Amino acid sequence: VGTGTFIGVDWGTSRLRASLCKLGSEGLREIATRTGPGVLAARDSIEDTLFGAIQPWIADHGTVPLLLAGMVGSPIGWRTLPYLDCPVVAADISSRCASFVSRGHSVLMVPGLACVNDLGLPDRMRGEELQVLGWLASDPAHGVGKRIVCLPGTHTKWVTVRDGRIVSFCTAITGELYTLLTRHSVLLALDSGAQAELVFDPDEFDAGVEVAAQHRAAAMHLLFSTRSRMLKRASSPGAAASYLSGLLIGADCATFVDRGAYAAGSIAVVGEPELCRHFATALGRLGAACEVFDGKRAALDGFADILGHRAAMRDEAVAS
Amino acid sequence: VGTGTFIGVDWGTSRLRASLCKLGSEGLREIATRTGPGVLAARDSIEDTLFGAIQPWIADHGTVPLLLAGMVGSPIGWRTLPYLDCPVVAADISSRCASFVSRGHSVLMVPGLACVNDLGLPDRMRGEELQVLGWLASDPAHGVGKRIVCLPGTHTKWVTVRDGRIVSFCTAITGELYTLLTRHSVLLALDSGAQAELVFDPDEFDAGVEVAAQHRAAAMHLLFSTRSRMLKRASSPGAAASYLSGLLIGADCATFVDRGAYAAGSIAVVGEPELCRHFATALGRLGAACEVFDGKRAALDGFADILGHRAAMRDEAVAS
Repeated sequence: VGTGTFIGVDWGTSRLRASLCKLGSEGLREIATRTGPGVLAARDSIEDTLFGAIQPWIADHGTVPLLLAGMVGSPIGWRTLPYLDCPVVAADISSRCASFVSRGHSVLMVPGLACVNDLGLPDRMRGEELQVLGWLASDPAHGVGKRIVCLPGTHTKWVTVRDGRIVSFCTAITGELYTLLTRHSVLLALDSGAQAELVFDPDEFDAGVEVAAQHRAAAMHLLFSTRSRMLKRASSPGAAASYLSGLLIGADCATFVDRGAYAAGSIAVVGEPELCRHFATALGRLGAACEVFDGKRAALDGFADILGHRAAMRDEAVAS
Repeated sequence: VGTGTFIGVDWGTSRLRASLCKLGSEGLREIATRTGPGVLAARDSIEDTLFGAIQPWIADHGTVPLLLAGMVGSPIGWRTLPYLDCPVVAADISSRCASFVSRGHSVLMVPGLACVNDLGLPDRMRGEELQVLGWLASDPAHGVGKRIVCLPGTHTKWVTVRDGRIVSFCTAITGELYTLLTRHSVLLALDSGAQAELVFDPDEFDAGVEVAAQHRAAAMHLLFSTRSRMLKRASSPGAAASYLSGLLIGADCATFVDRGAYAAGSIAVVGEPELCRHFATALGRLGAACEVFDGKRAALDGFADILGHRAAMRDEAVAS
């Protein structure tokens, strides 16, 4: 697959996360990480922000390849990469990366994906494709048969993979709804107008999942019960937020599990470990088996996979 | 029912709407209206705000009864009235109004309602009960048999009435979701970061309703298509907002229409006329018949109905 040092940058709307990685005979190692502002905040100084974030590593390591994924490849980012239409395999994504030089470093930018999802609606992703590639690369078994990858986050992506090919995906704005409803809606609004720290309450989360599981088709009519339940039980905003989280994650998972297109089988949940556990709880309650994978690791494996495909492309070009 | 002049005040979280009304032999007439700040903004000066808003009328008419409904009867309002548990009839609500004197004027405050809704979840309303009472009082036929009253607004209330008795209701936060998602989410976010005026596009609204009608159980997985559709069609934020409105209203209506508890029959949609028309469009697409009623008029009829019940109570007390 190749060896050497590279810097992988997962650069979304609201955050930059850079990883200094070493790819050696014993596999991939993350040596250090740094964070920085998202493309929205950095939009007028993308290049300066990037090199500011990785400056100490460049001082130590000299010229290293930079791999970028996420909204940095959108109109609010550095360069706008067109979406690739599904179905796609890893080699398609790798060959369609934008490749250019910046301040003496080779830069690869990973394109996002477009599809018509299983509801017949247009759908889009930018950044999550990296984790799917990493998850696929981490175990050859993942590339066999039909697999479902769930990527929880601001926007949950339910990805259908068949024999290593990303066929389609469907987005739910579950995480964003949670943030909007806890920050801006009346659902948790304390009558005193006070802001409160939202301490997670696992029992209330389970209660929310249970309500969502019981009334699978009624998500739109469940959310207000967050407020009514809080008024009735005089519970804390943290308890109400946990219940709301359970409702939203439960409804998101139930909507997928009840879909005709989904046949029973283990779902791979890839993302931030605590959030993945919440999804695993909900999927378990709904009778769907799942396995949890670390999303940060999957992203790095995705970068490494792309480097490997790029190296193979070069070798082929040289051989022919 | 009684005659005379009164001031009805529908005083919610974000707005006060006062109506000077005359109840005579030819029925109820609204003579003038004034608006003012909601209880949230006025909370530290409720009485001053109220009398400031109605001052010109008092100068002309002297001492008149004041009828208040909405969040003014909550902990963020003037006095906290406990919720009445459903089922209730108009006479129950009338007899449980808070009655006191302020600056020489008799004040009646209408209590909100609590229930366990048809999904088995606790539910609450404060203010909308007035429109249900008004709708019931406006036609004796409305008090016969099982009737569904839909009150669209920030929070849609789906009210079940049986033989003039408010049995239960279910809340959907449809309007609030629309506001949150258009203002704060990525769904409409222009990549340029610009704010845009959202011009209603009836065709895009219909498209949203159609998608919601096709995928009734999948509301959680439909919302992101607002963004994907906008990206794909390069459509305006107004078009995207109209599509989102269609999705949300369509999903709200479908969730109710598909409910086991709902048997076919005409639904009374009571509220702001344009919003009612949008709900009527969605209900029509879903095969549910409906009739639209003006919500402001229903609220005034509700106040008049309460005054009538109070007068009858007094007459009974005198007679006994």
